[in-house]
Order: sequence, then structure tokens, then C-alpha cells
Amino acid sequence: MTNNEWKYRVAYLGPEASFSYLATRELFPNEWNIAYRTIPECIDAVTNEVVDFAVVPLENAIEGSVPLTIDYLFHEADLYIVGEIKLKIQQHLMVNKAQKDNWEKIEGIYSHPHALAQCHKYLFYRFSHVPLHQTSSTAQAAKMVAENPDKCIAAIGNATSAEKYGLVIVEKNIHDFHFNHTRFVVLSKYNTRLPIENSDGQPKTMLMLTLPHDDAGALHRVLSVFAWRRLNLSKIESRPLKTGLGNYFFIIDVLADENEPMMKWAFEELNALGCTVKSLGTYYTYNASE
Amino acid sequence: MTNNEWKYRVAYLGPEASFSYLATRELFPNEWNIAYRTIPECIDAVTNEVVDFAVVPLENAIEGSVPLTIDYLFHEADLYIVGEIKLKIQQHLMVNKAQKDNWEKIEGIYSHPHALAQCHKYLFYRFSHVPLHQTSSTAQAAKMVAENPDKCIAAIGNATSAEKYGLVIVEKNIHDFHFNHTRFVVLSKYNTRLPIENSDGQPKTMLMLTLPHDDAGALHRVLSVFAWRRLNLSKIESRPLKTGLGNYFFIIDVLADENEPMMKWAFEELNALGCTVKSLGTYYTYNASE
Repeated sequence: MTNNEWKYRVAYLGPEASFSYLATRELFPNEWNIAYRTIPECIDAVTNEVVDFAVVPLENAIEGSVPLTIDYLFHEADLYIVGEIKLKIQQHLMVNKAQKDNWEKIEGIYSHPHALAQCHKYLFYRFSHVPLHQTSSTAQAAKMVAENPDKCIAAIGNATSAEKYGLVIVEKNIHDFHFNHTRFVVLSKYNTRLPIENSDGQPKTMLMLTLPHDDAGALHRVLSVFAWRRLNLSKIESRPLKTGLGNYFFIIDVLADENEPMMKWAFEELNALGCTVKSLGTYYTYNASE
Repeated sequence: MTNNEWKYRVAYLGPEASFSYLATRELFPNEWNIAYRTIPECIDAVTNEVVDFAVVPLENAIEGSVPLTIDYLFHEADLYIVGEIKLKIQQHLMVNKAQKDNWEKIEGIYSHPHALAQCHKYLFYRFSHVPLHQTSSTAQAAKMVAENPDKCIAAIGNATSAEKYGLVIVEKNIHDFHFNHTRFVVLSKYNTRLPIENSDGQPKTMLMLTLPHDDAGALHRVLSVFAWRRLNLSKIESRPLKTGLGNYFFIIDVLADENEPMMKWAFEELNALGCTVKSLGTYYTYNASE
């Protein structure tokens, strides 16, 4: 997006050099991108109109959904998804320059729990006796390694964080599964759509759906509503309603525009079935180069 | 379970005083319960017959599934679920005895990421400027607070961990949602069933199911297989197949015995639809008192 008159304010899950930062920089190279500490803080910043957009991770191909994003959108916020960014995730092992000859003897590895999980096998076979420490982001781990040149420790994260914090990458692409992408969503207070240049043109609509209580087979009827209209779902996921074990709401991605007649009829029928449906809006996907 | 001749060896996600320990102690009060450091280590111990059973967390009513357990069972192990334990989760704020008069001025709070998430609102309203630190378990956090009497820090965890590590509980029940339970599963190498005394007698069968590739509406057909036979599902959840964004497998809990004729026909029909179905076995639920 370019705009000579006005820069949009875009919140992202920081710190600088996080994967959210890489995703944000791809879609918003010329806007005013602002790091926030947590996902709820990013979402609150849009809700309170401190920023125009927020970019937060939604789902990783290996680790699955980011529960905090989905739950906060469902329980606490009233926002729309106006775009999506798909980013390739590559995890590298990095150490302080002062330790670059000792890296095979590292005594601790720091990273975000998702990144540690994405490199589970590598860590198991290569460093099974080295303690793993969780940090709030991969960039935070890189920062910690940079600030402790005397300690023989390593971080796992992306190449940008190695560069920003002056670390040396000692093993590249240590994530266990090759097809490692993360979906980030762009949130706004208004139900608009970002124009996305390299999108495949496929509109997607995200729905959050609660089934009528204690109605066995209700999910089957919900899927019937979409199936007989040939409305394809690219995703269905259950999340706890937080009212007791076994009570869920569903996140459904439909490959269609919420304004299509078929979609409008589907919404009406879902309401008639006793479901509560909330559309987070229709959006397009940006395929980030990295 | 009682047995005068022989004690079963039961692995649980340690350390001692973890929630897994509380669940294990309820169902196996007289067996040889052994703490393991990680969920994969618990599962491997059963696979390699180092132990007879393993007790690992599967799903929390607030935070949802434990991805590591589900993914490791699907991708790495070939085990059966022979029982389930439902345990009430109560989180408390605890400090070192030496700091008990300073607790309102704590400078750091330590706990497992799930426990921190379960107390998200409490922490936000009460301690919004106190840094949160992630530990590998709630008991680990309690241990750290016990070992640092000079530091003004707190842990979040259960009452047993406060007792074991000699900490003082300064605020009770700080979890945000009242209905906070966790389901633990008992894993075995053999498809048996634990006799469970206080079970409600409802057999449950867990299936792991992969849909035929690129078949829009396949999930709808899968649910039809159960719906027209009046086989009720208590849960359906998607997890990434780790082969790319948008490829999932499903975990389905059916409220029926896998040996019922209706279930056997359902399995045959699912295979005919091109699905890969794996039953983890039929089991009963133990309702733990705590």
C-alpha cells in the first residue's frame, strides 16, 4: 500500500524483527509500523483506534492455530479481517559472535514455544541434553543472546533477527517440516477490504459459529448448509467456549464472498437452525516472498 | 486400581505436584508413579515398555487441546487410550514465605504458559505491569520461587505445589473462568480398558481421521456417516497435517463402543469414502474429586 498524503498506523506483534514484523513490512512497506508487546495489546490498539490496522499471527502450518488470537477475537473484540498475509517460516540456530567457535557446546537454547516445537526433532537428535528456555518471541530470544556475549547460549529465530542483533547463524533451516508457513491476519475496526496486488483473487470469509445447545448432529446440519450450496470450506476448527469441557465454538473459512446471494441464504439458514453466526468479513491473501 | 501382587509403573508429566501428578494419584493411588520431564518422554516410555501406562494432558476447558499430546500420538506413536481422568483446575498465586508481606509488590510472575493464559484477566487487572515468565510446568515455577527467597517473585499453580515447596498462597482461585477442567488420558501399548469405579458408564472412542485429498465436502460426508446412525460426537477438532497450510487431520470423540455393530459399519463406510481412520480405543472417564 502506498499513500503520499497519509501514513497508516499499523500495530504488529513485536519486537522488531519478529515474524509478525516481516509479514507487516511485506504488505505495508511504507506505513507507520508500530511494535506492541502482546497479541491482546495489538487488538486493543485497533479497537481503541490508536492504530488503523493490526497484524497478528492466526495459524501456523505445523503448530496450528494461535489460540490467543482466536479467543481474543471471539470473546473480547469486535473487529474485521481485511486482509491476510501468508509468510514462509524459516528457523535458524544463532549464537553471539563471541561464542561462534563454541556453538556445539551451547548450554541453553532460547526461543518462542512455537519455534521450539517447530524444531522439536532437530533439537531432540542434536541437542537432547541442552535445556530449552521459552521466550515471548523469537526476536526476544535473539536479543537475550546478543546481551550475554559471555554465555554459551543460542537462540532460534529468523535471519532478520540475527542481522538486527548482530548474531551469527550457525545452522540454517532447522525446522522439522519443510512446508512451514504462518497466516497473519490484518484487523480493522471497519469491514473494508485491503486491495492486495499479488493475491490469487480468491475471496475468503471467516465465520465464528456457536451451535444450538445440546443438539447432537448440529455440526452435521451446519456443514450441510454449505455443502449443498457448493460453498467450499478451507478450514474448520473448534475452540472451547470456556463454559465447560465439551462446549465449543467453530471457526470456519468459506471460499466465497460474504455478499454472494448463496452466502446470505446460508447465514439465514444457520440462524434458523439456532446457530449464532458472526462474519469477520471477506478478505484476500497476500503471499509474502520470504 | 489396587493390586497386591504387582505394582504398575505409571509415567506422568512431572515434576511431582504437577496437575498431571494430581490426576495420576487419583486414579493410581497405589501404583509406582514416575515423573517424566516432557510429554514425548512419557509417550516414549510406554512405547518402549519402560512403563505400563502414561498419564498426559489432552485438553483443557479454557485453553483447548494440548497440541503436543495430539500431534505426538498421531505422528510418532502407536498407542491406545485405556482411560480418561477429568480434573478440576484451580490456580493460586503463591510466594516464598520470606516475601509474604511484600507480595503486592512482586516484580515477576512465573508459571506454565497455559496457567498464565487461564489467569489472563486477573493478571491484566491486578498486575498489568509485572513481567510474566514462562516455565515448563506450574510445579517448576513453584520450585523456582522456593529456591529464591531473596527475590520478590510469585508463582501460579495448584495447592499441592505450594505445600510441597513450602510456599504461601496469597490469592486463591485466580483463574478467569469457573469451569476450568482438564482431561488427562491414560495411554497403553495394548487396547485394553481400565475398570473405572466412579465413571458414568458412558463408553467413549477416540478416532483420528484423515480426509481424502482435495475433496470439498468430505468432512460433511464423514459427519453424515455418524449422524444417520445416531452416533453422537462429543468433540471434533482439526489439527494441521504438517504438510502445508490448509491440510488437516481430525480428532473425533464418539460416544459409543468401537465394538458396537453401528461403529463397525461406520468404520467400513469411512474407509469406502477414502478416509484413513485410526481408533485409539474405547475408554471410560474417571471424575477426580479435586
